[in-house]
Amino acid sequence: MLKVALCQTLVSDKKLNNLENAYRKISRAAFNGAKIVSLCEMFNCPYSGQYFRINAEEEDDSQSVDMLKKVAKEWQIYVVGGSIPELCENKVYNTSYVVNPQGEIIAKHRKIHLFDVDIQNGIRFKESDFLSSGNEVTVFDTIYGRIGLCICYDIRFPELIRKMSLMGAKMVFVPAAFNMTTGPAHWTTLFRARAIDNQVYMFGISPARDINGAYTSYGHSIIVNPWGEILNEGSEFEDIIYGEIDLDYVDKVRNEIPIYSHRKPELYNK
Amino acid sequence: MLKVALCQTLVSDKKLNNLENAYRKISRAAFNGAKIVSLCEMFNCPYSGQYFRINAEEEDDSQSVDMLKKVAKEWQIYVVGGSIPELCENKVYNTSYVVNPQGEIIAKHRKIHLFDVDIQNGIRFKESDFLSSGNEVTVFDTIYGRIGLCICYDIRFPELIRKMSLMGAKMVFVPAAFNMTTGPAHWTTLFRARAIDNQVYMFGISPARDINGAYTSYGHSIIVNPWGEILNEGSEFEDIIYGEIDLDYVDKVRNEIPIYSHRKPELYNK
Repeated sequence: MLKVALCQTLVSDKKLNNLENAYRKISRAAFNGAKIVSLCEMFNCPYSGQYFRINAEEEDDSQSVDMLKKVAKEWQIYVVGGSIPELCENKVYNTSYVVNPQGEIIAKHRKIHLFDVDIQNGIRFKESDFLSSGNEVTVFDTIYGRIGLCICYDIRFPELIRKMSLMGAKMVFVPAAFNMTTGPAHWTTLFRARAIDNQVYMFGISPARDINGAYTSYGHSIIVNPWGEILNEGSEFEDIIYGEIDLDYVDKVRNEIPIYSHRKPELYNK
Repeated sequence: MLKVALCQTLVSDKKLNNLENAYRKISRAAFNGAKIVSLCEMFNCPYSGQYFRINAEEEDDSQSVDMLKKVAKEWQIYVVGGSIPELCENKVYNTSYVVNPQGEIIAKHRKIHLFDVDIQNGIRFKESDFLSSGNEVTVFDTIYGRIGLCICYDIRFPELIRKMSLMGAKMVFVPAAFNMTTGPAHWTTLFRARAIDNQVYMFGISPARDINGAYTSYGHSIIVNPWGEILNEGSEFEDIIYGEIDLDYVDKVRNEIPIYSHRKPELYNK
């Protein structure tokens, strides 16, 4: 069994505090036996447009990435670094870095689908006013097998999770900050459905809810198994959510309902 | 508003009884104002391999299809004819016929994905021992707009429902007979997720549960709106499940979260 931990941190507008808090939470999770630890979307600054550029960091000059490398190496674990605003050629991306137990970056995902929504009596947000979008599907290899990675709104596109699964992912990490409109309405169903459809473990990692913040996250970080069962789910408060992962169970479910051999892509794409 | 009705009938091994029962239920639903009425998967015989061939009918010589035409014309409604075993060139298909208010067949879907599963301590079924599979994605046009149609296990393939939606479907009917393993585990989540992902109305139409039958259906026929909310859900017993459908709401949700313009198919397919 593989222990995975999701750090649902309370994110403030003080970057150093956020980095220290993330470092402590990751360390505690590792101390408790977790071998893969993930942070939430925008773990170093609030998920709100005005904070992105002022907190953005270049990959080679990043306090946030340095912290990820340090803690991963200290504890000999994989760290899925939630996401941070990444500065590159004057553009800002919503970027997740993954670091291996040697402290090396082994993957990087730039959020593909930007959250431009306007829901009546609900959330209004135009991420593309502040961020540029990535254009790569991201999977990476670990000693535990291949893992898919995307960020928040990316999960709304079933084609993306299917693509990762077809590329061999058996676990998919989704640092995310759903809000008080879409969280209660869609969060659990989306994670459960992606798990059922693709027969993968799904991990959703949210910031803790800050009702005084610029953006109110839903929280409820979640781990779902390939049968669609919720293994663990957080509250709205700061917490570490653990799950015991059995990768043989992925194969078992895929043998029981062999959807991959039943697919008929020639019909869907014509 | 458009009233839709789902007839969750108790199916026996007596075909004439099944046809009479379906005829009565459709008539009652139409009397109550439904303009589109759907039956369940295999409404004229039990969903069990040994019944398929002996109850199979050719399209041009079918008591079941004749009943659908008659009742649709009498009440001037659309009837989604659940499904029946269709005999064609000595093959048997799991086929759904759709009839318009003039009593004419306007669509026909042959189940694409056959249910060949073997779940430990759960259901074991090999549909391909008895049935041949279809190879067409099915949508059809009504005065209420374009509608998608697939059967039971077809719903497990998110690509198929996405394809129908991209072809213009705003409602998707899924006659289905989930069982006591997959029903409690997956039924509701799959219908809600397809609705959320594609921003369509989803309709799942199950036989009533017959605990003495050869196959025990889950029941729980369901109507979900494009925001993923359950508008109505049946119990395990015979019943007619109604829903008030607002097709403007499809457009509203699609404007609020414009996933169709945010999709990046060039990434998913490369």
